[in-house]
Amino acid sequence: MIRAVNGDRLSRRIAALAEFGRNPSGGVTRVAYSEADRQGCEWMEEVMSEAGLDVHVDAAGNRVGRRAGREDRLPPLVLGSHIDSVVEGGKYDGPVGSLAAIEVVQALAEQGITTRHRLEVIVFQNEEYGHVGSRAVTGELTEADLDVVNAIGKTRREGIAFLGGDPSRLDTVRRRPGDIVAFLEVHIEQGEILESKGVDIGVVEGIVGVQRWDVVVEGRANHAGTTPMGRRRDALLAAARFVDAVNRVVTALPGRQVGTVGALRVFPGAPDIVAGRVELSLDIRDMDEERIDALFRELCADAERLGGESGTAFSFSRYYRHEPVRMHPVIRGVLDRSARELGLTTEAMVSGAGHDAQTMAKLAPAGLIFIPSVGGVSHSADEYSRPEDIANGAAVLFRSLLELDAMEVA
Amino acid sequence: MIRAVNGDRLSRRIAALAEFGRNPSGGVTRVAYSEADRQGCEWMEEVMSEAGLDVHVDAAGNRVGRRAGREDRLPPLVLGSHIDSVVEGGKYDGPVGSLAAIEVVQALAEQGITTRHRLEVIVFQNEEYGHVGSRAVTGELTEADLDVVNAIGKTRREGIAFLGGDPSRLDTVRRRPGDIVAFLEVHIEQGEILESKGVDIGVVEGIVGVQRWDVVVEGRANHAGTTPMGRRRDALLAAARFVDAVNRVVTALPGRQVGTVGALRVFPGAPDIVAGRVELSLDIRDMDEERIDALFRELCADAERLGGESGTAFSFSRYYRHEPVRMHPVIRGVLDRSARELGLTTEAMVSGAGHDAQTMAKLAPAGLIFIPSVGGVSHSADEYSRPEDIANGAAVLFRSLLELDAMEVA
Repeated sequence: MIRAVNGDRLSRRIAALAEFGRNPSGGVTRVAYSEADRQGCEWMEEVMSEAGLDVHVDAAGNRVGRRAGREDRLPPLVLGSHIDSVVEGGKYDGPVGSLAAIEVVQALAEQGITTRHRLEVIVFQNEEYGHVGSRAVTGELTEADLDVVNAIGKTRREGIAFLGGDPSRLDTVRRRPGDIVAFLEVHIEQGEILESKGVDIGVVEGIVGVQRWDVVVEGRANHAGTTPMGRRRDALLAAARFVDAVNRVVTALPGRQVGTVGALRVFPGAPDIVAGRVELSLDIRDMDEERIDALFRELCADAERLGGESGTAFSFSRYYRHEPVRMHPVIRGVLDRSARELGLTTEAMVSGAGHDAQTMAKLAPAGLIFIPSVGGVSHSADEYSRPEDIANGAAVLFRSLLELDAMEVA
Repeated sequence: MIRAVNGDRLSRRIAALAEFGRNPSGGVTRVAYSEADRQGCEWMEEVMSEAGLDVHVDAAGNRVGRRAGREDRLPPLVLGSHIDSVVEGGKYDGPVGSLAAIEVVQALAEQGITTRHRLEVIVFQNEEYGHVGSRAVTGELTEADLDVVNAIGKTRREGIAFLGGDPSRLDTVRRRPGDIVAFLEVHIEQGEILESKGVDIGVVEGIVGVQRWDVVVEGRANHAGTTPMGRRRDALLAAARFVDAVNRVVTALPGRQVGTVGALRVFPGAPDIVAGRVELSLDIRDMDEERIDALFRELCADAERLGGESGTAFSFSRYYRHEPVRMHPVIRGVLDRSARELGLTTEAMVSGAGHDAQTMAKLAPAGLIFIPSVGGVSHSADEYSRPEDIANGAAVLFRSLLELDAMEVA
């Protein structure tokens, strides 16, 4: 099949970018605001220029590349993703989407195509630890947000300046609804649904809502030798039954909701002492926030019962809530149709992880294209997406962009 | 009721000893080989002298007080316990038995009673972190044992010298079967069986066997948002079901066996990551070692099933085994009868915790008298035993000692 985009060039660039912050393990640590991140961003500017984009660093430290359209009065079509990584991350989470966006623009240039709409490619800074670059564009960053210290000990304020931005001028970065005609992002799935089903392209319906609680189970610490089973108030036994209940309650209904206890600490935590206190995390995600609420209510009732049975007491404190975000139905249709016209198989899916597209969806109709992750592995040196899958993602982006450009989206 | 022992004096001495190593919390930190421990031991020598005992420090650093008997050819009757505490311990665990033994001897002297057998009171050093003093007497201490570093950073070898002993001459401390006619110890229960049943005196049948394992559950760490419930290999879910299984299996049979998971660690242990690995402790105790083995086999079968259901793998590594030790039936009978003749209620019970008496039982018929612990609290500033219960324990010790002295135990 003839592809409008150059998949080899795209894969070479992904490999080249992985040199910035490469680990001994073969993965990448390119945490936002690190030297590796800055060098990676500067290298991206060169690649954007090669693609014919007119590049600048905005006041938030995002790299923004522009290409003129045929109709100046129209707002831009925007493509983008990020290049920062988590600590001990992989080569694909972020770079695939950022470099696919650039590849699409370069392919347009090489084929002499000028779109009606202006085009913008944005490489958002610091997606991994707070969607900082995209939230600057939506105007959500508060002064307190700017004081948050990241994994390498810098505040976001310091990091923005380090990347060439100006944290005192974030108002110049902010866009408002209507300023952008549509936003598109390609990203690796970071799960194994596409690979296990043998599907080429995931068309993301939305990004799940997330709620997270600190859960404390109070029992009574006691000597493991001298305290008969019937006289214990074992916080770990109650907590264990709660962990099992989370799985049971979440899987009792059909659907894609997930519930996770990923952190659990025992006090005092000695082999010969019955646990007096357990602290654990509860994370529930679904596209339907009412379902999250209903699952939580059921778990509270279970905790009440488990506490009563075991002489322990549960308490819950919600510390994180992120509402579900839906991708625009018109754009989802365009992405799905474009993929099928390219002979690719598609699957409608939800994203369990956050992305810049969920932030940008507050400003403009947004679309998110997933490509397969081998083994579903992400945030790891073992993260891998095949070159042909990456090229597929870029091809869908190219075709969808042209279709959207032809539509009267507004 | 007229008591042969002076309960007020005994309680005053327990309070006085608690000044050595007193905490801001009101508890005691008198860890073996600390300055507080040494000062406490020296104070104990004075008290032993007041009681008419001829005191010396043996090569193991134990305080040994002797009182002549009427028949020199007979081996001694030995009473004793310890005065060292855990970090942030209480005032009663150890001191009650050590000072009750001295009180008994002083009461004999005041009443002009000379026993047939010689008497010895031993204040064993470092009971809490390895029964070091009593194991020197049974000859169990190896060179490697002497190199073990305790909670305050001293080797046992250094600690023995610090307390006035000579670690190169431990052979002079060792006794052999037949060297001691019987050993008796009073100790707080450290559980709440006696108090909750309103029983005065626990006659210990034996000290339970203990086996302890490190258990590792291997699953696969994964993103809590992008990994559907059905595709997880959640090590914490499997571990939680195992914790529940321990409780179910151990309580399925009647008996006093206990099983505890007191330590559990999750890796990587983040709220948004499905657990890839869990490490937990398993502690099983019973008077019958075959029952411990049978419970463990059943739990291994459960772990195999739980692993199969959840895509995880369990492995077990036993790192501690202590055989059950039985107190001598003749001595148990004497203790029980003595208590009843004093108008006290008794209960036969097992000890879930270790004591010097379990070490001494290897050398000689041994008996262990428990008195109630309020709320079952121990190893804590809140540890408390009532003066009347302490006096009861000393009275039983006094009466039992006289009865044993009159018997031809050998």
